[in-house]
Amino acid sequence: MHDLHFQPIGTIHSPHTSLEGMPIQPSGATEITGTIHILDDFVPGLKDLEGFSHIILLYAFHASQGFNLEVTPFMDAASRGLFATRAPRRPNPIGLSVVHLIKRQGSILTIQNVDILDGTPLLDIKPFVPAFDCPQVTATGWLATRASQSETMRSDDRFIP
Amino acid sequence: MHDLHFQPIGTIHSPHTSLEGMPIQPSGATEITGTIHILDDFVPGLKDLEGFSHIILLYAFHASQGFNLEVTPFMDAASRGLFATRAPRRPNPIGLSVVHLIKRQGSILTIQNVDILDGTPLLDIKPFVPAFDCPQVTATGWLATRASQSETMRSDDRFIP
Repeated sequence: MHDLHFQPIGTIHSPHTSLEGMPIQPSGATEITGTIHILDDFVPGLKDLEGFSHIILLYAFHASQGFNLEVTPFMDAASRGLFATRAPRRPNPIGLSVVHLIKRQGSILTIQNVDILDGTPLLDIKPFVPAFDCPQVTATGWLATRASQSETMRSDDRFIP
Repeated sequence: MHDLHFQPIGTIHSPHTSLEGMPIQPSGATEITGTIHILDDFVPGLKDLEGFSHIILLYAFHASQGFNLEVTPFMDAASRGLFATRAPRRPNPIGLSVVHLIKRQGSILTIQNVDILDGTPLLDIKPFVPAFDCPQVTATGWLATRASQSETMRSDDRFIP
């Protein structure tokens, strides 16, 4: 099988300096602002990005180590299959957050709804496009009655190595 | 900076065996079915996934090589910053598609709306949850008048190495 190497294109800065007590999703971080510092080599790729109100960030869960294939998520008391959760400890620890893009100044993006740890290595930015990214969902499994808890729930130490 | 190594957790199979003539987004692939074969080591992590109608796939654009920081996307005649596009040739060639999960049989997932090349290495699966993943978008930049073209547009050879 392939072995895939990735390199950060920048760093995400946020007020979240500890894995404990963080919002667990952007929906729980609506007033939290952060910045992204893009490495000089990649700044030309930011052209036209400021036209989008929301962007998809793919980043490394850099403080995460190892994984278990079943976990008890923050929003549940039962054990769930890892791929049916958004837990950070994963075989490939890649995080995904849709954030609000406030502005761009050169190599620095200001973003809102930040549920991301300070110092997180950024892997990719994609424009968020509802026609591509918001399907007509008919089932959300164990999260059906729990997703709204993400607005107030904060992390504890369960996924800290 | 960190150097990040990832390993596939499985392989995506689809009718798309050439980079030319493919749908460019899941919205253009609504009748196209594919399968995901998860490696044995990771199958226990699939528990509870069948409760979700839609899943987020993160995968390697394995046929992609190199990148340009400005590109002319399939849906535009103008040059755009790479990070304001979904083009496959990226500094970290990670693809993201939201697909419809039809069923799971052991290690095999059957999916619909597949805009992914046959043989693509899968990196991660996350449950799609509208409360997390569908913000109130107010601007979609250069794609504002073009996103609906993704339903009929097919790829050409512009991003083929």
